[in-house]
Amino acid sequence: MASVEILSFGNELLIGKTLNTNACWMAKRLTTLGLDVRRITVVRDDIDEISGVVKETRGRKPDFLITTGGLGPTFDDKTLEGIAKALELPNEVNEEAFKMIEEKYKTYAEERGLGKIELTPARVKMAKLPKGAKPLPNPVGTAPGVIIKHGKVTIVSLPGVPPEMESIFENSIEPLLRKIAGKATFFETSLGISGIMESELAPIIDKVMHDNPYVYIKSHPRGQERIPHIELHLSTTAKESTVAKNCIRHTMTQITEEIKAKGGKITRYEAK
Amino acid sequence: MASVEILSFGNELLIGKTLNTNACWMAKRLTTLGLDVRRITVVRDDIDEISGVVKETRGRKPDFLITTGGLGPTFDDKTLEGIAKALELPNEVNEEAFKMIEEKYKTYAEERGLGKIELTPARVKMAKLPKGAKPLPNPVGTAPGVIIKHGKVTIVSLPGVPPEMESIFENSIEPLLRKIAGKATFFETSLGISGIMESELAPIIDKVMHDNPYVYIKSHPRGQERIPHIELHLSTTAKESTVAKNCIRHTMTQITEEIKAKGGKITRYEAK
Repeated sequence: MASVEILSFGNELLIGKTLNTNACWMAKRLTTLGLDVRRITVVRDDIDEISGVVKETRGRKPDFLITTGGLGPTFDDKTLEGIAKALELPNEVNEEAFKMIEEKYKTYAEERGLGKIELTPARVKMAKLPKGAKPLPNPVGTAPGVIIKHGKVTIVSLPGVPPEMESIFENSIEPLLRKIAGKATFFETSLGISGIMESELAPIIDKVMHDNPYVYIKSHPRGQERIPHIELHLSTTAKESTVAKNCIRHTMTQITEEIKAKGGKITRYEAK
Repeated sequence: MASVEILSFGNELLIGKTLNTNACWMAKRLTTLGLDVRRITVVRDDIDEISGVVKETRGRKPDFLITTGGLGPTFDDKTLEGIAKALELPNEVNEEAFKMIEEKYKTYAEERGLGKIELTPARVKMAKLPKGAKPLPNPVGTAPGVIIKHGKVTIVSLPGVPPEMESIFENSIEPLLRKIAGKATFFETSLGISGIMESELAPIIDKVMHDNPYVYIKSHPRGQERIPHIELHLSTTAKESTVAKNCIRHTMTQITEEIKAKGGKITRYEAK
């Protein structure tokens, strides 16, 4: 199972201004594609912080390291400089990226009937990539995404603006990941339970997981102190989707019986 | 300025099932209290992963390390075992924590007119703390929070259920942090801008930040490709709230003038 770590760059995430929806969106996509998301790390827009966390992550040798944020034209868009520093590579104007950006501003000017838009240092900055990296077309914004293979690890950098991040991921990264993950399928289902405390559920989960070692069962308390209500989440990854589904179905039947035997009720069932 | 790192434990965050609202809530609170949130890290419910990331974080010597998740009664609630391993301390039943939990189940049984609720291993597990740690009362749930000072770093563990996490934070942690942070105040404001591209804004931000070194200015593109709309976020931390406010006000006046001079429009202004 191929492994991934997600790195999110942005002060707005560390001051609690912005919820990290990018990491959540990507974690879900990667998991659904059959990949194993090992860690999500958020650091601020600072070259040394970025370079430091990239080095640490690379040391854990995930197959992929995907970063979001920090590819734009402003002073605090420092992702590529940070990665270049971590990999000890120069960060320099990439011809292909330069052409992509030039084309964007050309179209932009034409659409508005403006004269030529000058490629100022702030704009050229978006074409500066670690040496050996390849730019990935950005269908909805200006700054290209970036991919660079370094030893065992493939590093992918995507913008922080959600529609830009999502479209580059879908166009350029997903096809690549599909090939690597092969037929691996993630399958999950969710049960609502009432009338049983989480501490009563604990030994039941232990037993059912012991009998079904490929299924992961997690309880999420959703109720108040006085009215216990728990969401039970079952998930598995298998090479064939029918195997994954059967695994989950079998486990669900067993745990449902055990819960009912203890006086619990199933209030909701949701297959995804 | 006191520094903090947040560690979030939970597979649900790594499979994209759950958005990390806990880290966002806490980052906002900590920032508002005048603390510097340096990093947010998410790892899965695994003793070695938890122990590993606690050791790494401790090595960076933040003043506080706050964890969320993994304090409950089920097999995958492994936070305290992981922390004990990282600190090379035994994880053992804490008498004070045991009494808190015993009391919870006593009240619970009385309210329902049930007989004595047995303290099963799953329930006693919530009273097992790293040696030397202190339990923090949980006003809305069962598992207590935990605080342990280890060398320079104070480690705080809170549950993953949001109302439990929030109430322990507000009752037991916020008063402590207020004392440490003193009068430090975080102040922020936000402007909506249209009619100017982010790449045109970049040199303006550079100039205004150079003139106002204590204010951090960040641009967040919010529009579509064809209709540029940008949110500009200004923030600062100062020892006196009037100093912070004046800093921001002065910076805002300057940047507003610069933006208007380039043909941009201010569409929204929000002081917080």
